[in-house]
Amino acid sequence: MLQVEILTIGDELLLGYTVDTNAAYLARALADAGIIVSRRATVGDDATEIARAVAEALDRTGAVITTGGLGPTADDRTRPAIAALFGRELRRDEGIVARLEARFREMGYASMPPANLVQAMVPEGARLLANGHGTAPGLWLEDARGRWVAMLPGVPREMRGMLADTLLPLLHERAGGEEGVVLSRTLRTTGIGESALAEHLGDLAAGVNGLPLAFLPGWEGVDLRVTARGMPRADAERALEEAVSMLRERVGHRAYGEIGTDLAAVVLDACRAGGVRVATAESCTGGMLGARLTAIAGSSDVYVGGVVAYDNSIKERLLGVDARLLREHGAVSEPVALAMARGARERTGAEIAISITGVAGPGGGSAEKPVGTVWIAVVAPAGERASRRVFPGDREEIRRRATQGALDMVRRTLQPTL
Amino acid sequence: MLQVEILTIGDELLLGYTVDTNAAYLARALADAGIIVSRRATVGDDATEIARAVAEALDRTGAVITTGGLGPTADDRTRPAIAALFGRELRRDEGIVARLEARFREMGYASMPPANLVQAMVPEGARLLANGHGTAPGLWLEDARGRWVAMLPGVPREMRGMLADTLLPLLHERAGGEEGVVLSRTLRTTGIGESALAEHLGDLAAGVNGLPLAFLPGWEGVDLRVTARGMPRADAERALEEAVSMLRERVGHRAYGEIGTDLAAVVLDACRAGGVRVATAESCTGGMLGARLTAIAGSSDVYVGGVVAYDNSIKERLLGVDARLLREHGAVSEPVALAMARGARERTGAEIAISITGVAGPGGGSAEKPVGTVWIAVVAPAGERASRRVFPGDREEIRRRATQGALDMVRRTLQPTL
Repeated sequence: MLQVEILTIGDELLLGYTVDTNAAYLARALADAGIIVSRRATVGDDATEIARAVAEALDRTGAVITTGGLGPTADDRTRPAIAALFGRELRRDEGIVARLEARFREMGYASMPPANLVQAMVPEGARLLANGHGTAPGLWLEDARGRWVAMLPGVPREMRGMLADTLLPLLHERAGGEEGVVLSRTLRTTGIGESALAEHLGDLAAGVNGLPLAFLPGWEGVDLRVTARGMPRADAERALEEAVSMLRERVGHRAYGEIGTDLAAVVLDACRAGGVRVATAESCTGGMLGARLTAIAGSSDVYVGGVVAYDNSIKERLLGVDARLLREHGAVSEPVALAMARGARERTGAEIAISITGVAGPGGGSAEKPVGTVWIAVVAPAGERASRRVFPGDREEIRRRATQGALDMVRRTLQPTL
Repeated sequence: MLQVEILTIGDELLLGYTVDTNAAYLARALADAGIIVSRRATVGDDATEIARAVAEALDRTGAVITTGGLGPTADDRTRPAIAALFGRELRRDEGIVARLEARFREMGYASMPPANLVQAMVPEGARLLANGHGTAPGLWLEDARGRWVAMLPGVPREMRGMLADTLLPLLHERAGGEEGVVLSRTLRTTGIGESALAEHLGDLAAGVNGLPLAFLPGWEGVDLRVTARGMPRADAERALEEAVSMLRERVGHRAYGEIGTDLAAVVLDACRAGGVRVATAESCTGGMLGARLTAIAGSSDVYVGGVVAYDNSIKERLLGVDARLLREHGAVSEPVALAMARGARERTGAEIAISITGVAGPGGGSAEKPVGTVWIAVVAPAGERASRRVFPGDREEIRRRATQGALDMVRRTLQPTL
C-alpha cells in the first residue's frame, strides 16, 4: 500500500503565522484515495532545511509531497533546494513562459511582472504537473531508485486543483493494483462532552466492531471516528457500516450525521422537508448564525434572513421587543429571547424564527449571568421553546457554541421525537 | 539560542480531519519568546510512530514539545510511548486523582468517569506541568544528557494556558542569559495582489534594511513580514522599526496596520474617533460582516446591528428597498446596494451604513454578473459611494473577501485622504 510523507514549506507556517490548512487537506484527500500518510512535517523557507527534511523523508518512505515555496518572490526556495538535492540543473521552459504571459494578459495586466519568470525554471528531467488554477505548474522529480518528490504550490486553490486533476491520477497509475485501503467513517454528535460520551459508549469506547475509535472534540461537538486500515475495500466498507450502526444506536439523538455534515445543512434540509422557512434574530453572535446558514449553497429557498439586534435599540426598532422587558429582565433573559424570535417571525414572514442573546465576554458577566450565559429561543407553528445554556471558552468559542446550540434546537424542534 | 521541535500527535491531525491550530499557536508563542522552532511534525495515535519521531527530534535538536494524546480515551498513547522511550514506569499520582475528582464535582458530575484515572498516571521522575484550564497536568521528562520532552494536552485552551503559565517560565529559567532573539514585524495590506505588490515594492521585495521579507497572501490581503534572527533584542527591534517604516512608505494607503490588527477593529476605532455608529445590510454574506465586527470585544458602542436581507422579500420588508429596483436592476446592482445601505441607515438610526449584495456561487452567475460579482455601498453623512468588485475563489472565499472589501471601503470613507 502506498505510503507518503507530506512536507509543507514556509516561514509563515513554521513560525505559526499561518495555520497549515494545506497539510490537513492533503492528508484527508490522500487517505480517501487509499494512500497512507505516515508523517507530516513543516520547515521554513531555508534551502538547507528543505533539502534535509526531503532527504530524511526519502530515506524513511521514498515518497514525498511538498507544498509551498514555488512562488515568484525571493523567499521561495523549494525549486532550487530540491533540484540541488537530486543533482539537477534548472532550465528555463519557454512553454511555461508563454502560458504565464498569456495568463497575466487574461487577468488584465499589460505584461507579466518579471519576478514571475522564476516560475518557468524547471529542473532537468522533471515532469510538469499542470496547474489549472494558477500561474505556474508543479514539479515531479524521481531518482534512479524510483524515489520521488511531488512539489505543489502553497496557494490552497492551486494545490487542491493540481492534486485532484494531476497528482492523484498519476499516483493511481503508478500504484497499479491496490493492496488495501484506509477508510474511515465519522459520526458527529453535539450537546455532550468527551468523557461523558466515552462513559455512555461503554465497551465501544475502546473500539467498535474491531476497529479503533477516535474522539474528536471541538466547538461543534464531539465527532467519533472509526478507521479500517489495510483491508480490501469491500471488507473495509462492510466493517465500517456495521461499526457506524452500532455507534448510532448507542449514541441516539445526540448524533446528527456523518463527517462532512454541517448541522446548518441538516437544519436547512429539515426545513425544506417540512415546507417551512426560517429567520434569525441575533444579539451576541452578531450574524454568525446567518453566516452559518448562508455558507451552504442553495440556502436561499429556506433561509430568508433576519436581524442582527446587537444594540438594544435595534431589538426594539427592528424586532419590536418591548423596552419594559429589556429593562426588567435584561437583554440576556428568557422573555427577551422569546420576544426577539417572535418579532423576527412576524416581521420576516418566515414560519420559524430563532434567536440568540447572551454574554460572550470577556466583560459583562455577573454572578447571576456569568460570561458564557446564552438564551436561545425557537418560535415555530407548533409552539415556542427557550433554553438557557452556559458555554465554556473565550468570546469566539462561546459565540460558535451558541450558534451550534441554536441550530441543534431548531433540529430538535423540527424532529419532535428527539 | 534555544531551539526546539514541535510534535503534534493525533490521527485526526495526521489524517487531516482537524486543522492543526496548536502547532501554529505554539510556533508563534515560542518565536515571540525568542525560541527558535526548527521543525514541526505530526504523527498519528501510534505508540511506535510517536516514540520514533520523538527519538529523531531528540537526536537532531534535543528539545521537543508535544501536544495531544494525553486524554482519557484509548486512542491517547503519548504518555506510555514517551515513558517507554525514556525507560520509565508509569505510577499513579494520588494528588492528581484528588484534583481530578474535585474538578469533576465542580463541573456538576456525581463522580469522576473512571476513564479519567489514566490521566493520573505519571512516568517516574517526570515533572508535572500545572493545568489551570483542564482536568490533567502536562508532563516534562528529561534524560541524563539534559535532552527533554514537554508533553502538553491537545485541547487548545489547556495547551495555551499551560504554555504561558508553566512551560515558558520554565524554559526561560533554564535558558539563563539570552544570546539573541527571533523577532518579526508584519505589515498588513489589502486590495492588491501578491505579484503586483512585489513589483510595486521593487528592490524592497528581496529584503528590507538587510532583513528577509516574506509575502503572505490570504483572503484578508497580502501581509508583509520582515524577520530579524539571532541579534540582541535592542538591535533587532531597531532594525525592524526602520524596515517597517520603509515598507509603510512604499506601500502607502494599501497598508492598514501591523500583525494582530483586524481590519474590523481599525474600522471600529475610526468610527469611535469620529463619533459615528455603524449598521450593516447583508445579502450574500448573510451576517459575516456583523460577525466580523462583533468578534471584537467592545464593538457594542459603535456597531448597532442591522439586517440580513438574504431573500429579496426581506430587502423590501426590513430595508424598504423598492420592488421596482429589484425587478429592473436585479438584487446584485448599484441601485439595490445603495438602497440597502440607505434603508439600514434610516431604520437603525446609525450614522453610517454599509451594504453587500453579490453572487457568491457556485450557481447564479451570468455573463454580465459572473460568480464573484459583488456590489458594496457605504452611506455616510459625507455622502454615498458604491463599488463593483469581482472576487476570485469559491463561495466561502468570495464571501470573506467581500466582507473584507466592505470593511476597507468604510475605512477609506472615514479617512478621506485615502
